[in-house]
Amino acid sequence: MSGLAAPLWRRAFAEGLGTGLLVTVVVGSGIAASALSPNDIGLQLLENAFATALGLAVLILMLGPVSGAHFNPVVSVVDWWLGRRTGTGLSPRDLAAYLPAQVAGAIAGAVLANLMYAEAAVSWSTKDRSSGPLWLGEVVATAGLVVLIFALAWSGRAAVTPVAVGAYIGSAYWFTSSTSFANPAVSIGRAFSDTFAGIAPGSVPGFVVAQFAGAAAGVGLLAVLYPRAGQAAGDVVTPSTDTTAGASS
Amino acid sequence: MSGLAAPLWRRAFAEGLGTGLLVTVVVGSGIAASALSPNDIGLQLLENAFATALGLAVLILMLGPVSGAHFNPVVSVVDWWLGRRTGTGLSPRDLAAYLPAQVAGAIAGAVLANLMYAEAAVSWSTKDRSSGPLWLGEVVATAGLVVLIFALAWSGRAAVTPVAVGAYIGSAYWFTSSTSFANPAVSIGRAFSDTFAGIAPGSVPGFVVAQFAGAAAGVGLLAVLYPRAGQAAGDVVTPSTDTTAGASS
Amino acid sequence: MSGLAAPLWRRAFAEGLGTGLLVTVVVGSGIAASALSPNDIGLQLLENAFATALGLAVLILMLGPVSGAHFNPVVSVVDWWLGRRTGTGLSPRDLAAYLPAQVAGAIAGAVLANLMYAEAAVSWSTKDRSSGPLWLGEVVATAGLVVLIFALAWSGRAAVTPVAVGAYIGSAYWFTSSTSFANPAVSIGRAFSDTFAGIAPGSVPGFVVAQFAGAAAGVGLLAVLYPRAGQAAGDVVTPSTDTTAGASS
Amino acid sequence: MSGLAAPLWRRAFAEGLGTGLLVTVVVGSGIAASALSPNDIGLQLLENAFATALGLAVLILMLGPVSGAHFNPVVSVVDWWLGRRTGTGLSPRDLAAYLPAQVAGAIAGAVLANLMYAEAAVSWSTKDRSSGPLWLGEVVATAGLVVLIFALAWSGRAAVTPVAVGAYIGSAYWFTSSTSFANPAVSIGRAFSDTFAGIAPGSVPGFVVAQFAGAAAGVGLLAVLYPRAGQAAGDVVTPSTDTTAGASS
Repeated sequence: MSGLAAPLWRRAFAEGLGTGLLVTVVVGSGIAASALSPNDIGLQLLENAFATALGLAVLILMLGPVSGAHFNPVVSVVDWWLGRRTGTGLSPRDLAAYLPAQVAGAIAGAVLANLMYAEAAVSWSTKDRSSGPLWLGEVVATAGLVVLIFALAWSGRAAVTPVAVGAYIGSAYWFTSSTSFANPAVSIGRAFSDTFAGIAPGSVPGFVVAQFAGAAAGVGLLAVLYPRAGQAAGDVVTPSTDTTAGASS
Repeated sequence: MSGLAAPLWRRAFAEGLGTGLLVTVVVGSGIAASALSPNDIGLQLLENAFATALGLAVLILMLGPVSGAHFNPVVSVVDWWLGRRTGTGLSPRDLAAYLPAQVAGAIAGAVLANLMYAEAAVSWSTKDRSSGPLWLGEVVATAGLVVLIFALAWSGRAAVTPVAVGAYIGSAYWFTSSTSFANPAVSIGRAFSDTFAGIAPGSVPGFVVAQFAGAAAGVGLLAVLYPRAGQAAGDVVTPSTDTTAGASS
Repeated sequence: MSGLAAPLWRRAFAEGLGTGLLVTVVVGSGIAASALSPNDIGLQLLENAFATALGLAVLILMLGPVSGAHFNPVVSVVDWWLGRRTGTGLSPRDLAAYLPAQVAGAIAGAVLANLMYAEAAVSWSTKDRSSGPLWLGEVVATAGLVVLIFALAWSGRAAVTPVAVGAYIGSAYWFTSSTSFANPAVSIGRAFSDTFAGIAPGSVPGFVVAQFAGAAAGVGLLAVLYPRAGQAAGDVVTPSTDTTAGASS
Repeated sequence: MSGLAAPLWRRAFAEGLGTGLLVTVVVGSGIAASALSPNDIGLQLLENAFATALGLAVLILMLGPVSGAHFNPVVSVVDWWLGRRTGTGLSPRDLAAYLPAQVAGAIAGAVLANLMYAEAAVSWSTKDRSSGPLWLGEVVATAGLVVLIFALAWSGRAAVTPVAVGAYIGSAYWFTSSTSFANPAVSIGRAFSDTFAGIAPGSVPGFVVAQFAGAAAGVGLLAVLYPRAGQAAGDVVTPSTDTTAGASS
């Protein structure tokens, strides 16, 4: 049972909305960056990272009290896994609502970005992202993300999670060779736009496998670093102890 | 009745000052960016977004305790609308003072930026910004802004609003095709400077309509995400519960 | 009498050290930026603004509990002026120690930057910065700085002052035509380095006059915005209520 | 005896992991920056500084409750030195575990960055960094880092240390001529990658000597600025008073 009081349909809606807007931020700022800074790919990535770091932090602030602001199947699955014995994480039923909402939202978010920039609603990305070093990048990126989120939750500092997660992704765009997708739903969504931030559909499965491998590594690191913690694993990303705002019905 | 204790004339003055300085930040940094980075429009936008994100956060911190730091007719109207039954938002009389103050301040801010950069005090912008995708961008930008501000206020986290709003706009400069004006008063003010951040007067009405449409969408999303909240809708952007500093008359 | 408990010699030392390191940050990052990004002056200013915004925030955090972290004669004079009746600001004796310490520190900071970058210890700047629009820029920049610092102090939010002041200056580098010196001591120090951030000695008096004019404008705005506040004007930039750490003699 | 409750092996593991990931951030983002922005070294450094400032802050947040998040032999040695009489800092036994863990982690972190970017696992850097001005840069960078960390700890503001240290290093990349290594373990690790952030092995000893000289200068400044403080020198970087999360054995 989750620590969040909103009914499941509303929480799933928030997950879909948040994941969707995250993809809109990533894809939309990527389109703008490549159009406006055509001569320097690094500058494009800096612009993309700037927009993503700020936008992701804001989205977590905005929706955390409703759904926990996972926006990421890896985070939701780990939340369920770590809380499965104590009943503090997502339930299997929660998971069955969160995951499809995240994937559907991600696709809608890519379509929205495409439309805002006068592109076709859907254009399959042709950007191949398949190689061992890139997969290693995704393992590292996702492991770090998982350790960060649960370390903050378990040490009573979830109030800084929105900013910390935004900062982490902004940094990981640069320090991982894969530019840190670190999110299966976002990886799927980014396949629907043949622009700067796209990923060819054929490269998605490899990324998703690497992301779950990274999540497993992150869970292992947490067991070493923060043993006996995790009883309060529910509601991990929520930046406020006050979750009653959306608590009706 | 508003939760703010300062007399209306002072609050309106703060709204005019804050909206004005916001336009000064946007227009002034746009002039500097296009003059100093003439070869890369993306770099110009990054410089403009950097200055705006930081400057907007600071202005909200500076004036929030006086007027709530709306600096935006859309925010003021939504504040009135959401609090009209419970009497927690702006009153119609408040609104009648805030809106003209915001617009007048915005125009004065553009003039100030022009003068600091040795331009003519007023030069009508010739930059056409009219198209469906741009209007969609304004709808998205304004809806997100409205959801963010009231979600933070209703979940007891208004202390982070200044930084969150600055970060949101800095990100939305990139992820929306319209570079996120998201503010009718600022849109009018930016028509008074034929520089980087300008907008042709003929394009302003379309932007304003899109902004109010976005605000309506934001109100709808809030009703889904945060039902039964909103009783404390007054004083929504104020970053401090201590509003007594400016409470005398 | 000041609210700070450290003896005056230590507070003056902290003011000299902090102002000096601020000039080291400004001048040093300016030298690096112009050497490493020779083809785009805007990019140089972005690098300079990035370093200054972060570095200034850190210096205020580092030394605030000792001296209040003014690092700026304008701030010290306004602190004395606003607290002269209630005895809450700097005393004339404090001022007589702070001001020369700030100026001497600023010069030493420029020399340190020059030496780190293998320049001559002192090279008079040849960069003329004299014109009405630039002076208007300094008036705006300094007025905003004064309003920000005292608005935060008087509304009980001095804990955010370090970040807010850093953000303000980082933004004002862009939105004012003068790149926001806003500080007489730093203006003098920057005359000692003929590099990116320099100012010709002959341009310094005009800037200093404009800065004090801006401070007066800021005091006027504060009187309108925050009347009856200011009784606690001492210790205005200190980011912690706990000033006992450096309280021995 | 340290204020941290985790067993020494776990704390040493956290120091190795954190120092390693810090080097991964520095080296990895340096490789990406030089590959993606080949025409402007300043832009490369801005990208590198952006990633490092955000990544370092996040790593301190992530591991602070376990080990104090020193990630730096200079910080650990100063922590021991300042707490040696009162027993509040690291013990000699702690030090004997922290230092080798930091160095080993740093080397592993460079190897990980190399592998993610499809470089040879190890390639000795050929970038000579030896000169008086560079050593002066390291003295300044390290002195400032030491003063910052202990000033925050001693004035009860360790909660902001993660962000402040990240911001400091991001700024010092620019204002010191040496780009602020300020860390002997990271200096050694960076010798293992012949890429943007590398340092030739022959230049490492000079940097390390300068860093310890800077640490001594920082300790001297602290004695002047914050006398009679320092009784709580243990656990200096931990951003939370709640260190019980990892407190089991």
